[in-house]
Amino acid sequence: MRRRNLQLDEQGRLRHLLTIEGLKRQQIVDILDTAESFITSSDQQVRNAQVRKVPLLRGKTIVNLFFEASTRTLTTFELAAKRLSADVLKININTSATVKGESLLDMLQNLEAMQCDMFVVRHSDSGAAHLIAQHVAPHISVINAGDGQHAHPTQALLDIFTIRRHKGEFAPLTVAIVGDIMHSRVARSQIHALTTLGISDLRVIAPKTLIPSQVEGLGVHVYHDMKEGLHNADVVIMLRLQKERMQGALLPSEQEYFQDYGLTEKKLAVAKTDVMVMHPGPINRGVEIDSEVADGPRSVILEQVSNGIAVRMAVMSMVLGRPPMDKESEGAP
Amino acid sequence: MRRRNLQLDEQGRLRHLLTIEGLKRQQIVDILDTAESFITSSDQQVRNAQVRKVPLLRGKTIVNLFFEASTRTLTTFELAAKRLSADVLKININTSATVKGESLLDMLQNLEAMQCDMFVVRHSDSGAAHLIAQHVAPHISVINAGDGQHAHPTQALLDIFTIRRHKGEFAPLTVAIVGDIMHSRVARSQIHALTTLGISDLRVIAPKTLIPSQVEGLGVHVYHDMKEGLHNADVVIMLRLQKERMQGALLPSEQEYFQDYGLTEKKLAVAKTDVMVMHPGPINRGVEIDSEVADGPRSVILEQVSNGIAVRMAVMSMVLGRPPMDKESEGAP
Amino acid sequence: MRRRNLQLDEQGRLRHLLTIEGLKRQQIVDILDTAESFITSSDQQVRNAQVRKVPLLRGKTIVNLFFEASTRTLTTFELAAKRLSADVLKININTSATVKGESLLDMLQNLEAMQCDMFVVRHSDSGAAHLIAQHVAPHISVINAGDGQHAHPTQALLDIFTIRRHKGEFAPLTVAIVGDIMHSRVARSQIHALTTLGISDLRVIAPKTLIPSQVEGLGVHVYHDMKEGLHNADVVIMLRLQKERMQGALLPSEQEYFQDYGLTEKKLAVAKTDVMVMHPGPINRGVEIDSEVADGPRSVILEQVSNGIAVRMAVMSMVLGRPPMDKESEGAP
Repeated sequence: MRRRNLQLDEQGRLRHLLTIEGLKRQQIVDILDTAESFITSSDQQVRNAQVRKVPLLRGKTIVNLFFEASTRTLTTFELAAKRLSADVLKININTSATVKGESLLDMLQNLEAMQCDMFVVRHSDSGAAHLIAQHVAPHISVINAGDGQHAHPTQALLDIFTIRRHKGEFAPLTVAIVGDIMHSRVARSQIHALTTLGISDLRVIAPKTLIPSQVEGLGVHVYHDMKEGLHNADVVIMLRLQKERMQGALLPSEQEYFQDYGLTEKKLAVAKTDVMVMHPGPINRGVEIDSEVADGPRSVILEQVSNGIAVRMAVMSMVLGRPPMDKESEGAP
Repeated sequence: MRRRNLQLDEQGRLRHLLTIEGLKRQQIVDILDTAESFITSSDQQVRNAQVRKVPLLRGKTIVNLFFEASTRTLTTFELAAKRLSADVLKININTSATVKGESLLDMLQNLEAMQCDMFVVRHSDSGAAHLIAQHVAPHISVINAGDGQHAHPTQALLDIFTIRRHKGEFAPLTVAIVGDIMHSRVARSQIHALTTLGISDLRVIAPKTLIPSQVEGLGVHVYHDMKEGLHNADVVIMLRLQKERMQGALLPSEQEYFQDYGLTEKKLAVAKTDVMVMHPGPINRGVEIDSEVADGPRSVILEQVSNGIAVRMAVMSMVLGRPPMDKESEGAP
Repeated sequence: MRRRNLQLDEQGRLRHLLTIEGLKRQQIVDILDTAESFITSSDQQVRNAQVRKVPLLRGKTIVNLFFEASTRTLTTFELAAKRLSADVLKININTSATVKGESLLDMLQNLEAMQCDMFVVRHSDSGAAHLIAQHVAPHISVINAGDGQHAHPTQALLDIFTIRRHKGEFAPLTVAIVGDIMHSRVARSQIHALTTLGISDLRVIAPKTLIPSQVEGLGVHVYHDMKEGLHNADVVIMLRLQKERMQGALLPSEQEYFQDYGLTEKKLAVAKTDVMVMHPGPINRGVEIDSEVADGPRSVILEQVSNGIAVRMAVMSMVLGRPPMDKESEGAP
């Protein structure tokens, strides 16, 4: 309970974005609508969403605290901040600093004292962004840019934004998420987002070793066979296979994985003819997805990247743009 | 003599900021007043000074030349420059380049030719900023962000700015600086600033091995005992203990140092009840200061960080904002 | 043929800048005139060209993709972009990524999807910028910031810009390029630029081992002796000696090279009295040029650096500022 509410302020508005879990449907829709508003009118068609530079966050300072390497997510957050006219700081993190270590908290307090307004946090420990959000000063917002195997909320938001631009309504859709569901923060956030939006048929497809035990309680249907799981799908979301998983006992070889779960045109034939193929990137060509599919007409992988700018702009401007509540009028009828 | 005048232009205005030594009282007060002017009216109370973004240095380019690692000072200079709307360059310094080496001077000349306007210099050699200031083109200003054991003028300025916001007048104050006075550029600059401002009782407290021999000539009273030195103090400034000093013969163990000179609530009891506790950061908890004091109600350590932005903005805008003198009117009566 | 045209759009306007080869005289002159327009009126004299900040590329995003280390060129491109009010990204390149590798092309496609507008590319492989230009989306421009031993077009443009500011007309000039012509992308681009501008006497001076075999076909006269080659020269362009060449069999020692081809005041005595001495930097003092010459009154080496900002601003604003052609009116009379 406490974790879910941590990201909302006293008026129920988004103050941090730590996880999709616990967000109301309308809050998610508001983010998507705000993202849509940043897209220039000449590009209101589905592909290649362009955003113009706006002065919404001029004078605000956004700090990227990336404890885990990431070029793509880091770059899109930096670009989103610059499109909003904010100043951006990139802090060189001493990777030996732990989230619980005193030195990290001292560093955060110093950044707060420097009048920074937002921390965008990426960390390999699940819960890192929550922990930081629990300690920051009242004027600071924290955005989770991926924490361990827990959550990656802006990725899930850009994914559903991309789906909505193509399909319009969520309720009638069949969506299949394919790959390492067990260890994926992306999958976890996507499942929360899509079930909150009332999707009718949400499926996960993976070998038994990569399906978490209680996943069906989240409202998904489990498949271990691609032909069955992809049948009649409107959307297929491929997950990146973390190659370090290969070294353990969870998976056979890349070749075998590709044979069973790699997305090919042939396997895709059982999906709907207008199926969308998605991937959070970076893709492992020939491991979880065939190049023919990744670069093919049904792939929206690069659109996802474009949409990531608008969606991150939406989240950043919403959490930093909340007008302060008038203390006196709070109790008024 | 030559060194002192190097930082003033022909009209006696601040062109570089290399050291507090030789500045007149009014020049220091002007800097503090300018810093105060950057603070937003809604935050004119003592704590959490906020500055708004101003276009004073739009089109100017400020280069951070940090030959010595520093996250905090580098970040505050970067933020101060951005709040003034300047463009900021961070140069990756080949640490093997020496101040006297030809290659460094070539690099500086190139940066000048690129129409940079200010070099913010941090270097482990005492005198590095002076040396650079002696060689730069007439349109360039140099700010010393810490040179060896010599000076750290912007740190001293933000310290006295913080004291003035709390205490108002300097003359009646008793200020104690505690720690490694011998090797501290911060202490040296603080002593020059506070004596220039006419403080009545300035004390340094340290073991004999960490007191420079002629320090009393600077106008300070030397104490080796905390109880005596802190008695009736209005302000206590703790210095960071450089851990590498421990390895030499100058100091016993961290534990012994903390027992004798670490600031605790108990030791602080002999100071005035409204004593301010200061530290330039980053703090060594449990070495020179107890966490209870550092995080306690009398600590202004994080305020110092906030004030560092406004003070650095003041210095930067003053040295770059000097209107050129009319050559013809110079000789006029 | 295909390579030459790759950098022009369908209307013959500059879309990429990959090489000087194939540019028309008027296109080069247009770039120089545009660069001149950025220089403030108070500095229209020859030296120390200053540019003001202009909003021409506000909202555009320029990505520096430097696969090869370079502080000077990287910094001038960054400054030029900021003076044009563009947003600048510096991507940390995994140096193991090859130009032909799939991972690089995926990275470029992602940057395109992030709505970047320009890639400034530096790479140790000849042809890298061309290869990237062949693959980018229609809205992206590529600027070659140096590729292997092939071309460095912005360097050549700033060189001729510097010459024009001093000498006015190109036709009557005698220009000597001295040094490792064989391996120099700078020399190659300079030769194309100067011959296109109709220079009357273009000379290259080098030991036989450092002259490419068919260089005379480019319209230059080859000299192996400094006294002959520098005779009556209006402009002398020294090249940086790459010290790694010394290890091969192509050259004797640094001392011997300096004795034969290093530029000294004595050797320069046979040139015209108002000869200009140029060097792309960084200079090897005492190897290809004596400090007395490099720092002397005829050296324009630092002016070249200043002019590099204005010239790169010109190229960037021209390739990104092309108004889209009206499709309907294209076929109209």
